[in-house]
Amino acid sequence: GPELLISLANQPFPAELVVVGDPQQLQTAAQRIGLTLQLEAVDLTVDPQRHRPGYLKLLSSPLATPTVAPQHPSIDNAAGLIDALTSATKICQQGQADALVTGPIDKSVINRAGIAFSGHTELLAQLTNTEQVVMLLASESLKVALLTTHIPLKEVATAVTRVKLIRTLEIIHHDLQRLYHLPNPRIAVCGLNPHAGEGGYLGDEETDIIEPVLNQLRDKGMALLGPLPADTAFTPEALARCDLVLAMYHDQGLPPLKQNADHDAINVTLGLPIIRTSVDHGTAYDLAGTGEASSASFVRAIHSAINFTNPG
Amino acid sequence: GPELLISLANQPFPAELVVVGDPQQLQTAAQRIGLTLQLEAVDLTVDPQRHRPGYLKLLSSPLATPTVAPQHPSIDNAAGLIDALTSATKICQQGQADALVTGPIDKSVINRAGIAFSGHTELLAQLTNTEQVVMLLASESLKVALLTTHIPLKEVATAVTRVKLIRTLEIIHHDLQRLYHLPNPRIAVCGLNPHAGEGGYLGDEETDIIEPVLNQLRDKGMALLGPLPADTAFTPEALARCDLVLAMYHDQGLPPLKQNADHDAINVTLGLPIIRTSVDHGTAYDLAGTGEASSASFVRAIHSAINFTNPG
Repeated sequence: GPELLISLANQPFPAELVVVGDPQQLQTAAQRIGLTLQLEAVDLTVDPQRHRPGYLKLLSSPLATPTVAPQHPSIDNAAGLIDALTSATKICQQGQADALVTGPIDKSVINRAGIAFSGHTELLAQLTNTEQVVMLLASESLKVALLTTHIPLKEVATAVTRVKLIRTLEIIHHDLQRLYHLPNPRIAVCGLNPHAGEGGYLGDEETDIIEPVLNQLRDKGMALLGPLPADTAFTPEALARCDLVLAMYHDQGLPPLKQNADHDAINVTLGLPIIRTSVDHGTAYDLAGTGEASSASFVRAIHSAINFTNPG
Repeated sequence: GPELLISLANQPFPAELVVVGDPQQLQTAAQRIGLTLQLEAVDLTVDPQRHRPGYLKLLSSPLATPTVAPQHPSIDNAAGLIDALTSATKICQQGQADALVTGPIDKSVINRAGIAFSGHTELLAQLTNTEQVVMLLASESLKVALLTTHIPLKEVATAVTRVKLIRTLEIIHHDLQRLYHLPNPRIAVCGLNPHAGEGGYLGDEETDIIEPVLNQLRDKGMALLGPLPADTAFTPEALARCDLVLAMYHDQGLPPLKQNADHDAINVTLGLPIIRTSVDHGTAYDLAGTGEASSASFVRAIHSAINFTNPG
């Protein structure tokens, strides 16, 4: 995370970038990969200045143990990571920042510290008092949203409810308009079961839940396709007919997204009162300290956040 | 189905092709799409003759109503379709044919006729008294096998058992050697849950079932990777490290397979005492009668079956 941030800080961006983090951790990481970095305390009360390569504005959020070895994260820092995320969210809510971009995080470190944490997205929903958010992964060529996210597979079927599906489709429809400026977004919806249930022979959630919801929302003018068999929902012909695919669960939608993404996919949280994008990858501890991790996803996450703040 | 068969019969193949079907249905289909076809009764007691384009050897298996309109299949023909499949299987078992290639079938027509039928594969297992088979989908660039196939998603987690996983991996290992002549095949195994359970935080089937089985089979010399998070198991880097990916269920493995397959994926049944390949697509009634359906998958299914009969 810190290393990617330092490496991308050397590139130009048409906005002011403010890092919320520990200055000592950032400087240590910079030395480790042999880059210099000028950190400057940000003044959030003055007008933003366009990012200068090699510099980063800093909102300091100290860690308890900022100088741990890159491949051995410390649970001492768990609370500090949550604090940083909370501060960054707050300045977005207060209008002192226009968008939040997050790097990779190690969920297990935070959980091992005794803080229940299932991901950035879930914490952001809580911090902003948002009842439901939607996880969108976007590569250059494909957008995939998920109805359910980080839950065991055996819990997926019961998590697919009419209320959740309606709310999810409303959020997607609204945010494809708000962020991507698509006036009438076309959303392809996967079935839950193989072959989208094959007329009830392979499961009944399509006929009982998904089809009635799609018909109800079509009556309100939404452009919805499906429920589609997931195995053919990601072919080039199928993708040409829609702007986004809604998968019912994590491993139905993300394998095809990541297969062709060439590491530049990003994660966008729909439904929040703030704009939030993120890298779509994990911490890659095997690459930490080497300077070899790709910042492609982080760079795209920042550029997308900047684009989303434009009024279209 | 019949139309694809007639169209591909005009191509050369380095083997004798025998169609098991209704001659009147085939001739009607040929007239409909404007091709001529010479059907000749096969004599299974003489040596095979290489296929001649424009001709097909026939093992007659009559349908009750052979001249139905292409887009309106009749349940009267359900029993006849099962008979044809049974005859074709029998001549393979008796050594009068070297391999079985099947076209698309409409499961619902057979089920509506009151015959319980969940697919070719399941019937073939029954006809050959095979306790467990494995469904393999193969495109030019990717092979994906499935631990569970055509069951509702809510039944998947309980269907993942140690016994089934062991038997499935043994069949895959054996048949990658037998059919694809890979001396020590490398099999990548997906987890059941998102992020392969993320160390137990997102499900326990990886630690309770999958990891112990993989360790047990590694001790016997099998080259196994995983359990891998499915979302990154299909990237080009990940696929370069294995010969086949075993997905835990249908919609985990087939969307990435079909996304890049360009309609030439085929279905191979592993674990049978006979060689069996199939098209990987459905009946495409919307294209039936138009002559516009692509025979690419059917052609590759035949060529693969011919290759599989070679002793390597």
